Amino acid sequence: MIEEEVLKLIKPNEEDKKRLEEIAQQVLDRLKGLDAEVEGSYRKGTWLKGDTDLDIFVFYPKEVGKEYLKEKALNELLTRVRDLNYTIAYAEHPYIIVKIEGVEVDIVPALRLNSGEEAITAADRTPFHTRFITSKLDERGKDEVRLLKRFLKGIGVYGAEIKVKGFSGYVSELLIVYYGSFINVLKEASKWKHPVRVEIVKQKKEFSEPLQIPDPVDPKRNASSAVSLKSLVTFILASRYYLRKPSLDFFFPKDKKYDKIKGDVLILKLKFKNTVVEDILWGQVWRNVEKLRNVITNAGFRLIDINAWGNESEVYIGIQVESKNIGKYYLNIGPMYYQIEHVDKFIQFNENVWVGEDGRLYSIKERKESELEEIARKNLNFKHPFTLEVNWLTNVGDDPWINKFLLKTPPWLK
Amino acid sequence: MIEEEVLKLIKPNEEDKKRLEEIAQQVLDRLKGLDAEVEGSYRKGTWLKGDTDLDIFVFYPKEVGKEYLKEKALNELLTRVRDLNYTIAYAEHPYIIVKIEGVEVDIVPALRLNSGEEAITAADRTPFHTRFITSKLDERGKDEVRLLKRFLKGIGVYGAEIKVKGFSGYVSELLIVYYGSFINVLKEASKWKHPVRVEIVKQKKEFSEPLQIPDPVDPKRNASSAVSLKSLVTFILASRYYLRKPSLDFFFPKDKKYDKIKGDVLILKLKFKNTVVEDILWGQVWRNVEKLRNVITNAGFRLIDINAWGNESEVYIGIQVESKNIGKYYLNIGPMYYQIEHVDKFIQFNENVWVGEDGRLYSIKERKESELEEIARKNLNFKHPFTLEVNWLTNVGDDPWINKFLLKTPPWLK
Repeated sequence: MIEEEVLKLIKPNEEDKKRLEEIAQQVLDRLKGLDAEVEGSYRKGTWLKGDTDLDIFVFYPKEVGKEYLKEKALNELLTRVRDLNYTIAYAEHPYIIVKIEGVEVDIVPALRLNSGEEAITAADRTPFHTRFITSKLDERGKDEVRLLKRFLKGIGVYGAEIKVKGFSGYVSELLIVYYGSFINVLKEASKWKHPVRVEIVKQKKEFSEPLQIPDPVDPKRNASSAVSLKSLVTFILASRYYLRKPSLDFFFPKDKKYDKIKGDVLILKLKFKNTVVEDILWGQVWRNVEKLRNVITNAGFRLIDINAWGNESEVYIGIQVESKNIGKYYLNIGPMYYQIEHVDKFIQFNENVWVGEDGRLYSIKERKESELEEIARKNLNFKHPFTLEVNWLTNVGDDPWINKFLLKTPPWLK
Repeated sequence: MIEEEVLKLIKPNEEDKKRLEEIAQQVLDRLKGLDAEVEGSYRKGTWLKGDTDLDIFVFYPKEVGKEYLKEKALNELLTRVRDLNYTIAYAEHPYIIVKIEGVEVDIVPALRLNSGEEAITAADRTPFHTRFITSKLDERGKDEVRLLKRFLKGIGVYGAEIKVKGFSGYVSELLIVYYGSFINVLKEASKWKHPVRVEIVKQKKEFSEPLQIPDPVDPKRNASSAVSLKSLVTFILASRYYLRKPSLDFFFPKDKKYDKIKGDVLILKLKFKNTVVEDILWGQVWRNVEKLRNVITNAGFRLIDINAWGNESEVYIGIQVESKNIGKYYLNIGPMYYQIEHVDKFIQFNENVWVGEDGRLYSIKERKESELEEIARKNLNFKHPFTLEVNWLTNVGDDPWINKFLLKTPPWLK
C-alpha cells in the first residue's frame, strides 16, 4: 500500500527523535529559570523525518505587554545564547534563531495567557494549539498527519507563508483531528466546493476566505486564512485523482524535463542587494505579479501565464504571452453616432475615424507601449533595491523551475 | 451660398435636356404601336448634369403575366432595336440596354396595372412612382432633389444597389417631397436615431430596416429597405457636420493621398473569368466579407477593418489587422474544478494543463491556422470562377481605393 510505503520514508525513527531531544534539552538548560517550553511539530509528534527545526517558546506574564517582548525579553534571551551561532528573525515580532549541529532552533518570546482568545500575537496562541492537538491525536493520528503533510508538500501547497499561500502544519493537524485519517481527509476534500467550512468548533466571526477552519482555541480566527483558492483547488483535484489512482508521484514528484517554448516567454531575474524577510519580499512579489498581469493584458498582450519562483534574495518572474508582436496600433471602439458630444470629441481627438456596420464610430490608435520588456521594466516596484535582468527565453536548459513553468501540468495530474 | 454653387454645377441646361429628349424620341419612334413611356429621373426632372441614362418602359396588359415579359415581350422589343448596339441585362427580369450617342437607354418591359399595390415586379411600380413624384415636385423641388442626390453621392451612400446599400433616387425624391427642401432634410436627418420612420403615408406592414419609408404607391413596401445602418449613419453624421459647417467637400470630395500603413494590411485581388451581374456579384462579396470578418476574428487576429471595392469583374478585399503575428499557441480557458466531468475531459484532451488563481483549469492549445493569407484563401467562396492574388501591402502607391482604405476618415468628417 502506497501510504505505508510513504510512512516508512517520512516517519522519524528513535535515533532521529533522540537527536532532536538532546538539542532541545541543551537549549532548555541554557534557558533555566525562565518559563520555557518546546512547541511545534516536534512537540506534537507530527514532524517529518529530515525536518530539522525546533521551536522553543519562552513565556512572560501577560502584564509585561507586547513591547516588553520585543526588547527586554529578546535581550535577556540573547544573553543566554550569545556564544552560539545566532541570528535575529522578524515575524510579527522578533525572535532568535540558533543553529546547533545542523538543527535550526527558534527561540520565541511570548505572553502566557489563560486562553487562546486573549492572544495578542500569533506566538501567544501556540501553546494552546500544542495542547489542543496533543490531546486529540494518538500515535496513528500523528502518522496520518505526517502522510497529509507530505502529500501537501508533494503537490506544492504545504506552508502558510505568503510565497506558498498553502496549508500550515496546524491546519494539517486540524484536518486529521476532524476527519480521522489521511484517506478520509482526501475523500472529503475531493468533494469540496469553495467556500469550504470545516467546523471543529463553531466559528465566532464571518470569514471570507475560500477555506474556513475556525481555530478551536480562538474561533473568531480562521486557522486556514492563508490558503489561496489556487492552493485549495490544487488540493481538491489532487485528492480526487489520488483516490482514483494512488501513486508515490503525489508525495514525491519527480522533476520532468520539458523544453518546448510555446508562445514567447520573458524571464525577469531580480537580485536583491540584501536578503529580505521572506514574507515581506514575497508579499511584494505577488503584488508585482498581479500588477504585471493587469498592465500586460491592458497593453494588448494575450497573457498565457505569469508566475514567480526563487528565494529571499533572488526572484524570477516568468511571463508567457501568445505573441510578443502585437503591433504598434490597435482598433479603438468609439461611441454610437447618436451620442453627439462623445462623437464630436472622438472625431476631434482621433485619427482614421470611420463609421462601422453597427453605427458606431471607430478609429486606429497608437499603443503607448508595445514592447513587453519595457512594460515589465517600468512596472516593477519593490521597497528594496534590486538589479534586473530581462531576457527572452530561447534555450531552456535544465533549470527545474523553468521546465515546470513551461510544462505547467503537475506530475500527478497526467 | 454653397448650395447655389453646387446647383450651377449639377443642373442640366436646355442643351443637355434637348439631347436626351431627342434620343428618347428616337427610341419611342422605334417602339411605335406599343404602350411605351419615358420613366426615371429624366422624366421626373430630377436627373443630374452628366447623367446619361434614359429609362423607357413598355407596358403590356396585366393578363399576359410575368412570364410573357421575359420571353415574348423581350423578343418583340429586340426586333425593334436589333440593328443598334444592344445588350440584355438581368434585374428581376431581363431588359434591353442600347447605347445611342453615349447615352445608355434601358428598354424595360412591364405590366400595366391599376395601382402600385398590384405590382408583381419592381418595374410594374415605376409608372406610379413617376406619377407620384411629378405631381408633388415643382421646379424648385426638383433642384432640391438634385442637391440631395449629389450630397448622397459625395458622401458615398447614393444608390440602392447591393454594392452601395444606400439611398435610391426615388428615396431622395420622397425625402424632398416630405421635408420640402434639401436643408430641411438635413436638419431632420441630423437628429435621426434608428429605426427612423418617414411616414408620407401610413405603413401597411411592420418593417425591420433601420430606415423605414412606406412607399406612397404601395405602403406595405419599405421604399428605403436597401439602406444599411452604416449608410444611414453616414448620412446622419454628414447632415450634422454639413449644417455646422457647409462645404463643397460633401458634394465633391477630393481623393486624399494617405500612405501610412497602420498594422498589417492584406489585399486580396479577385478577377472573375466573366462579368457577373453587379448585384449578384456584390451580394456574394459582402457575404464573403462577413464570413472573413468572423473567421479572422475567431482565428485570434485582432481585426481593425475589412472592406471591399471594385466592379463587376475585379474585386479587392482589404483586411487590416493589428498584427499578423499572433503566435502558434493560445491560452485555452477550461472548466471550474468542481465541474468534474468537464475537468476529466479537459485533462484528457489538453496539454500544459494548470490550475489558475480563480480555481479554473487552463491549458495551452495550438492554433489550427495562424497565417492570415491561408485563412483568407480557404474561406473565400463564390459561385463564379475567379483567380486570386494575395499580397501584404508594403508600397501604397496611388490607388485611390487603397488610400481611402488606409485613411478611413471621409474628407467631410475632419
